[in-house]
Amino acid sequence: MSAGSWPPKDSGKPHLVIIGGGFGGLTLARKLRRAPVYITLIDKANHHLFQPLLYQVATASLSPGHIAMPLRAIFRSQKNVRVLMNRVAEIVAGEKKVRLVSGDEFTYDRLVIATGARHSYFAHPEWEKNAPGLKSLADALRIRQKILATFERAEMLLAVAQGSAEVRAGKDAIDARSVAQGSAEVRAGTDTAELKKLLTFVIVGGGPTGVELAGSIAEIAHHTLRKEFRSIDPHTTRVILVEGGDHLLMAFPGALGKSAEETLKKLGVEVRTKSIVKNVMYDGVYIGDELISSANIFWAAGNTASTVLSTLGTRLDAAGRAVVGSDLSLSEYPEISVIGDAAHCVDHASGKPLPGVAPVAIQQGQYLSRKIAAELKGKKIGDFRYWDKGSMATIGRGRAVAKVGKLQFSGMLAWLMWSFIHVLYLVGFRNRFAVMVLWMYSYITNSRTVRLITSDDL
Amino acid sequence: MSAGSWPPKDSGKPHLVIIGGGFGGLTLARKLRRAPVYITLIDKANHHLFQPLLYQVATASLSPGHIAMPLRAIFRSQKNVRVLMNRVAEIVAGEKKVRLVSGDEFTYDRLVIATGARHSYFAHPEWEKNAPGLKSLADALRIRQKILATFERAEMLLAVAQGSAEVRAGKDAIDARSVAQGSAEVRAGTDTAELKKLLTFVIVGGGPTGVELAGSIAEIAHHTLRKEFRSIDPHTTRVILVEGGDHLLMAFPGALGKSAEETLKKLGVEVRTKSIVKNVMYDGVYIGDELISSANIFWAAGNTASTVLSTLGTRLDAAGRAVVGSDLSLSEYPEISVIGDAAHCVDHASGKPLPGVAPVAIQQGQYLSRKIAAELKGKKIGDFRYWDKGSMATIGRGRAVAKVGKLQFSGMLAWLMWSFIHVLYLVGFRNRFAVMVLWMYSYITNSRTVRLITSDDL
Repeated sequence: MSAGSWPPKDSGKPHLVIIGGGFGGLTLARKLRRAPVYITLIDKANHHLFQPLLYQVATASLSPGHIAMPLRAIFRSQKNVRVLMNRVAEIVAGEKKVRLVSGDEFTYDRLVIATGARHSYFAHPEWEKNAPGLKSLADALRIRQKILATFERAEMLLAVAQGSAEVRAGKDAIDARSVAQGSAEVRAGTDTAELKKLLTFVIVGGGPTGVELAGSIAEIAHHTLRKEFRSIDPHTTRVILVEGGDHLLMAFPGALGKSAEETLKKLGVEVRTKSIVKNVMYDGVYIGDELISSANIFWAAGNTASTVLSTLGTRLDAAGRAVVGSDLSLSEYPEISVIGDAAHCVDHASGKPLPGVAPVAIQQGQYLSRKIAAELKGKKIGDFRYWDKGSMATIGRGRAVAKVGKLQFSGMLAWLMWSFIHVLYLVGFRNRFAVMVLWMYSYITNSRTVRLITSDDL
Repeated sequence: MSAGSWPPKDSGKPHLVIIGGGFGGLTLARKLRRAPVYITLIDKANHHLFQPLLYQVATASLSPGHIAMPLRAIFRSQKNVRVLMNRVAEIVAGEKKVRLVSGDEFTYDRLVIATGARHSYFAHPEWEKNAPGLKSLADALRIRQKILATFERAEMLLAVAQGSAEVRAGKDAIDARSVAQGSAEVRAGTDTAELKKLLTFVIVGGGPTGVELAGSIAEIAHHTLRKEFRSIDPHTTRVILVEGGDHLLMAFPGALGKSAEETLKKLGVEVRTKSIVKNVMYDGVYIGDELISSANIFWAAGNTASTVLSTLGTRLDAAGRAVVGSDLSLSEYPEISVIGDAAHCVDHASGKPLPGVAPVAIQQGQYLSRKIAAELKGKKIGDFRYWDKGSMATIGRGRAVAKVGKLQFSGMLAWLMWSFIHVLYLVGFRNRFAVMVLWMYSYITNSRTVRLITSDDL
């Protein structure tokens, strides 16, 4: 029990608390490595997650270790950063305190909230258990498990139906063949419905995550698993992508959305635009008035910011994001800044709120590091300006769409750009190298070798 | 619902059911790829697991994907194998039926039981929840989570103690400093005990798994995490390895056990031989009459075979293994064979039961494939004979012990042999290559980058 306080008592330096080790919080903390400040970085996970590739863990192409890096390893040599794995319950802005779920408190001189977002279930939080979203490694492993287990269940169902039909046919051969056939047909009817339900996947939300998930699941069913089952035919799998808007990838120009739709259709995905989900049950989903039976419903629609923001008592937008000024700070509490998916920040150019994407969070983290460093010297810097370098989304093996300024790309070229940029931004050399090798291998062989069901309770 | 029965009705070929896709079952099924037989391989997991490297997943050096391969992928092109992911509840030997936990049944002509073993808790099954063992990927991820989370908890404990001590000191400065100091000391006392408990690891069982776990945990605490915490000093971690016998690695010559003990001591492990565990509680373990407080107790002692064997009604040994004849079959049911960790098979040379190691299971699977292929032609083959190629265990980075015939090795040379042989036997080229690269990288940099806590519920 010898370690000193934080910041060290005689350092005379201020205490910056950063909540969240995502793109925004991580960038900020790293850029402040030479600033005269002590940082406490609080995250509920023990790792930074490269979220743009998370769907590849969910669809068994990459391992968690390829896209996640322990925060402690990242900050090992940066001695002004202390990492704590915990959850923040409340921010007591008036007392400059952060209260953890345990009830313990930390005081701060400067606070940056970079807590990201969770999926929004359109005021139906009860849908979440039936339609898991994809934000954390635990989410991705849960979805991977669900996808893989559903094919196992379907195979088992058919194997048993065949087995018991034989047994029954054998037993019944002597006396009541017609009756037995009748009940076998009834059973076959039930099993067919069950089988259809197991082999139907519904993905709600036609943004980048929904498009990537739908494309990958179709590839798994129609290519990866093709020859691996003896009873079911994975090729009969239905993958349905549901989008409320009139085209996919609403954040992109309509032409790219159309291009994505065509590519998905070639992969065997049913794309349903202008379709509203009315209800999500345990084994089905209502799209308008139509019931689609499905044991595999995944959610990739809408975001809502972390609930801890509501404890600030400042203005939040409809998505629960804190409205920040052009310097990313709160007007009531200039010592508190909010960045990334947690912030509602108006773009100086378009006058619209900035989207919840990694480049925005990274640039805001960079800006804030300059602003805080300047403040420590009693100086000021200008407002935050987002530089839009373009955006991209991948659809399947060798297919993507990209927008760079006024240029639009689709197909293989966009995919190569996408791959290059994503590998480039991966944290840590080893991961970058391993992911590149894996991608090349998987592109050539079209295999997904991380198809592991690792949980006991199946 | 179109797929036919298994075996196909008009094939006229017999049905071989193999329970378990470990080393024995997998080897057998692969070797029978050209035999006129239809195989159903039932496993509770969807993957084959390279168990000798499982402790490296538990200690964050390898990802699950590196040491596991989907059974379906392995048998994709072997059309006489059907894989079913399920659990067997009972074998109804009299009716040649296998009953699953769901109540569904399959008939067989020939049955091979290769269900492996779980850890034995010496008639104290209630100890398992406090001292998890290491047999499956789920086990390994649970142990990894526990190891990593305990350091996070310890860091949090100290950070909060420091924070609240400051807050309290500030508040109390005016009136009652001495009282505050008193209560701070009381709290510090409680926290010190809690901290010690968190940073004490106890591994029960000095066989290869226990030695590997103890060595790896000591390396994590004393090297990997060394500079990553700001409050706790991971170097103060205690790692205690408990063994009932008078030296470690009882299956090896005493000199190698001594050598392993010395290496472990250099790594900072306390080795306690001739020590019997009397009780395992939630937060401590009794070794004889001494209570050691520990939040991290792991079990690597004793094996007990799968409970499904008890449904056979044949003779089992003290470890629950089915006693087989020299042709690996049951005397009561010549159509049932038992191999690997599930079998009690007497070595023709030594007259002692063969140990539960991978080479025994593999050689038994090979033998049985020849025996079954011969039977299908109405022929017979001789008895099973185990060829002991030697055995080895690794202790830490660059240290191992090995026995080949009458030769004994230890240190770097043994480790190189160990590495080479283990990579050689890994299923699938990609895994072999990736594991080799990772090992080289991790050997050079001494890092463990798979230190991920992936579960929500921490």
